[in-house]
Amino acid sequence: MGGKSGWYRGGVQAPVPTQGRGPLVSPRGGRMRLLAVTLYDTTLRDGSQRAGIAYTSQDKLRIAHRLAGLGIPYIEGGWPGSNPKDGEFFRLLRERPLQGAKAVAFGSTCRAGNAPESDATLGALVEAGTAVVAIFGKSWDYHVTRGLGTTLEENLRMIRESVAYLKRQGREVVYDAEHLFDGFRRNPDYALATLRAAAEGGADWIVLCDTNGGTLPETAADIVRRVAAELPGARLGIHAHDDSGLGVAVTLAAVAAGATMVQGTINGYGERCGNANLCAIIPNLELKVGIRCLPEGRLTELTAVSRFVSEVANLPPWDAQPFVGHNAFAHKAGVHVSALLKDPVMYEHVPPETVGNARRVLVSDLGGRSNLLATFGDQLTPAEAAELIQRVKERESRGFQYEGAEASVALLTYKGQPPFEVLGVKLMVTGGADGPAESEAAVKLRVGDQVVHTAAEGSGPVHALDRALRKALTEVYPSVARMELRDYKVRVLEGSQGTGAVVRVLIESGDGEARWSTVGASTNILEASWQALTDSFAYFLLFREGIRTPEAAMQG
Amino acid sequence: MGGKSGWYRGGVQAPVPTQGRGPLVSPRGGRMRLLAVTLYDTTLRDGSQRAGIAYTSQDKLRIAHRLAGLGIPYIEGGWPGSNPKDGEFFRLLRERPLQGAKAVAFGSTCRAGNAPESDATLGALVEAGTAVVAIFGKSWDYHVTRGLGTTLEENLRMIRESVAYLKRQGREVVYDAEHLFDGFRRNPDYALATLRAAAEGGADWIVLCDTNGGTLPETAADIVRRVAAELPGARLGIHAHDDSGLGVAVTLAAVAAGATMVQGTINGYGERCGNANLCAIIPNLELKVGIRCLPEGRLTELTAVSRFVSEVANLPPWDAQPFVGHNAFAHKAGVHVSALLKDPVMYEHVPPETVGNARRVLVSDLGGRSNLLATFGDQLTPAEAAELIQRVKERESRGFQYEGAEASVALLTYKGQPPFEVLGVKLMVTGGADGPAESEAAVKLRVGDQVVHTAAEGSGPVHALDRALRKALTEVYPSVARMELRDYKVRVLEGSQGTGAVVRVLIESGDGEARWSTVGASTNILEASWQALTDSFAYFLLFREGIRTPEAAMQG
Repeated sequence: MGGKSGWYRGGVQAPVPTQGRGPLVSPRGGRMRLLAVTLYDTTLRDGSQRAGIAYTSQDKLRIAHRLAGLGIPYIEGGWPGSNPKDGEFFRLLRERPLQGAKAVAFGSTCRAGNAPESDATLGALVEAGTAVVAIFGKSWDYHVTRGLGTTLEENLRMIRESVAYLKRQGREVVYDAEHLFDGFRRNPDYALATLRAAAEGGADWIVLCDTNGGTLPETAADIVRRVAAELPGARLGIHAHDDSGLGVAVTLAAVAAGATMVQGTINGYGERCGNANLCAIIPNLELKVGIRCLPEGRLTELTAVSRFVSEVANLPPWDAQPFVGHNAFAHKAGVHVSALLKDPVMYEHVPPETVGNARRVLVSDLGGRSNLLATFGDQLTPAEAAELIQRVKERESRGFQYEGAEASVALLTYKGQPPFEVLGVKLMVTGGADGPAESEAAVKLRVGDQVVHTAAEGSGPVHALDRALRKALTEVYPSVARMELRDYKVRVLEGSQGTGAVVRVLIESGDGEARWSTVGASTNILEASWQALTDSFAYFLLFREGIRTPEAAMQG
Repeated sequence: MGGKSGWYRGGVQAPVPTQGRGPLVSPRGGRMRLLAVTLYDTTLRDGSQRAGIAYTSQDKLRIAHRLAGLGIPYIEGGWPGSNPKDGEFFRLLRERPLQGAKAVAFGSTCRAGNAPESDATLGALVEAGTAVVAIFGKSWDYHVTRGLGTTLEENLRMIRESVAYLKRQGREVVYDAEHLFDGFRRNPDYALATLRAAAEGGADWIVLCDTNGGTLPETAADIVRRVAAELPGARLGIHAHDDSGLGVAVTLAAVAAGATMVQGTINGYGERCGNANLCAIIPNLELKVGIRCLPEGRLTELTAVSRFVSEVANLPPWDAQPFVGHNAFAHKAGVHVSALLKDPVMYEHVPPETVGNARRVLVSDLGGRSNLLATFGDQLTPAEAAELIQRVKERESRGFQYEGAEASVALLTYKGQPPFEVLGVKLMVTGGADGPAESEAAVKLRVGDQVVHTAAEGSGPVHALDRALRKALTEVYPSVARMELRDYKVRVLEGSQGTGAVVRVLIESGDGEARWSTVGASTNILEASWQALTDSFAYFLLFREGIRTPEAAMQG
């Protein structure tokens, strides 16, 4: 029982399929058993509806190629008729086509009263030049009569003729049945009639959409089963949203009920609460249900892809995200950490490395001694560890946060001479009608016997402080030129106190090989930045370069 | 079909129970039907394991009373034996007891080899003085032999005797079966034996815990059903985690299978990916399944409670959170917005006001004209709207973000004289060994015919700018004293450029009646702050006070 190999013993919660990329379904015990689903990513279309996202065409191009590299076969790029940015993206894509994946242009059926041949939306879709086109149509009768203001019959014609027209243009057609579940619950006959219209038009895929995200998993499974029975032979897909916190569950339930295409987005980005999250759906299907989603060996890239998309989308990473989040395998409770040291299977549902993530042990007063010893156990005596916990607690009460700042913790454990000493700092910011503009910092340091006093300008006050400090240190430690700041994060604590609140600054630095993070906290954002900055330089000199005295640096 | 009352027509996806607070289950068509579940909140215990959370005892006290006010009957407050903070919290709670809710002290069974009477953990639990005590024990055999290093038999004794001891002390006992699902999948007989031991000890509730968060909903439902069949008469609970993105779904599935107690946390806070999110479970059960969770009329407080807890936890709000998030009913796609204007049921799964949330229409290039017209339709001509969209786009490309800054958008639409003009700003920050410390700002403004030139100090540079600007404006517009800054947020864009990156500042202000937000963006954090600050004062004077000239202010 248990042991490292015990993860999958209890981990796979359905019969494991035979290895390799088998056929889509295989006979097993008299029933057909699904071995793989077809992924359809809409990060660039539905995902971009998330509040706070505004991709450039170049952003979209980078993401599309990264998704193709992950092994996602269908990548929906945008709605070419709706805005110039998406038109430009499909033009760029023709110059630099995706490898191993199909780009999809998205749009709607023709308008009421229009012939497909003369409809602007369908024209733009054909012009986008993709091999695959997705169009959505209405499945909920109320949306037809009240939303579109047309008749139920005319809507069926629009669906049937639009699909047929795109098929005549040689396109693979994905038909998105918008509001299928909501419509089916109210008027199943009409909802089914819209799907039949798409099938009659020749749709290659019929995707059942829970557009408003309100459907419960059993309801979804029940409706997928009924649709599958009414449309034998149709290839069905599922498109879920997370408005009920059930986007992943609805998708898994629909797959169990017969859907073979799965639509979703990286990090669950999307309008309102987001789309069904591929970063959770893929590992659940692969590791637990035993259904293949990605080509062999690609699952380990999932965490990197998640972080890449969050970076390009310019959204703060979702640390608590299942499987791929920074905290997904972060352990804080002391009782968990001591068991983890014995065998990680005890407190991890899958091995973090299967999705390219990593285990973390958090330093905080809750975890107490066993967490800290797990991190610095070799260097500290029990008495020193207890004293360190006290210092961490005291500084946390002032707004410091050491969970994300391992380098600042390492400096707290350091007992030797500091590599430099700050004697004074001055900063001058001046500006005219547009407010503060020029920033200039002067820094005075003692390094060994020397006093260095220098100044620099920057594009902002923190940049000026960084440049002045770097310039001063370079005079004694030339190797600081190798070090650079990678990320600078600011968090305002106690938001109710407005501009007089405590701010916490986290700085991430790197030297080409390693990365480390440092922290500062103060009511003065520049003081907090300064603390994190000086910690970062000190960590580099002491722990990366191993320089313990200025003399050693100058001889080295 | 449809209309505002159509929400629930299709919304409730299971038979609706009779109104009012009926019995727990009622006969319906020969089967017993659940009408209500018992909520058990562990925001203050398991929830505090979330990375980034460090509550003070006072924080915990505020949250506990707020949860009691929401109508949650069981509130787990902490582990009194594990750290001094939790002990202090239970002491405070005795001075200011909860109204209408039971506080729960949490801990473990006695240790292997210990008699309950002389066990320190159980002693601390009794000392906490709560009417209800929760203890966890091991249900997964591997955790017993490898984790605890004891025998399977001894573990059964520890469970049985610990529960029995606490019952003898007159406590209501909640038994948390840790790793029940993982253990059951591997060794169902032993897992069941641990539950029987708890039942024999006299446990009032037996809670099945998916501690590692890896269980799929159908697996969970299947195991709950089997446990219910083996332990007839036992009151079962469910405690799920979100490591698979399925915490809500596992909880709903367990309730459908027979669990009548639901454990979870506000905002889904908790170790790693978090606990099952009560903010999604409660509205799903109440609005969709028709199972009562809160006293009548309290569901509308859910959004406020969610934001309160995020504020006290000092975590940034989870905007995409189902039901209660800032974006849960935020519409960006132009096609959605035009339909919403006809009838919100078309794009909202539940009415936002049922959970105390509100609809928002986002301004951005994707939504285009129809969103902007929905917001400012009455004030702008189509040509002016088009020009405004252009200006928004241009500024968004420089890092501004108007989705959260309605007041800055309003200023973009304003065509009259500005209430003041900035002539110059100077900021001086000086410090010694600890880095930047004192901040002093000088501000020169033209207000009508007057030139005001003044200076102020602050606890940081932005605070100094705020105070100097406020001081200068007060000379002409005394009413600015009524206005205060409520929140100050900083977001670093293009993180790869370190301290030279573009930063975006969002400032929220209020005057006791209304709140408004403004935005600034620059590579210079002080310039970005200055833009948001001056926008905020300008919005107050123009749109809240209706002051269009300095002369009017001085006469008024």
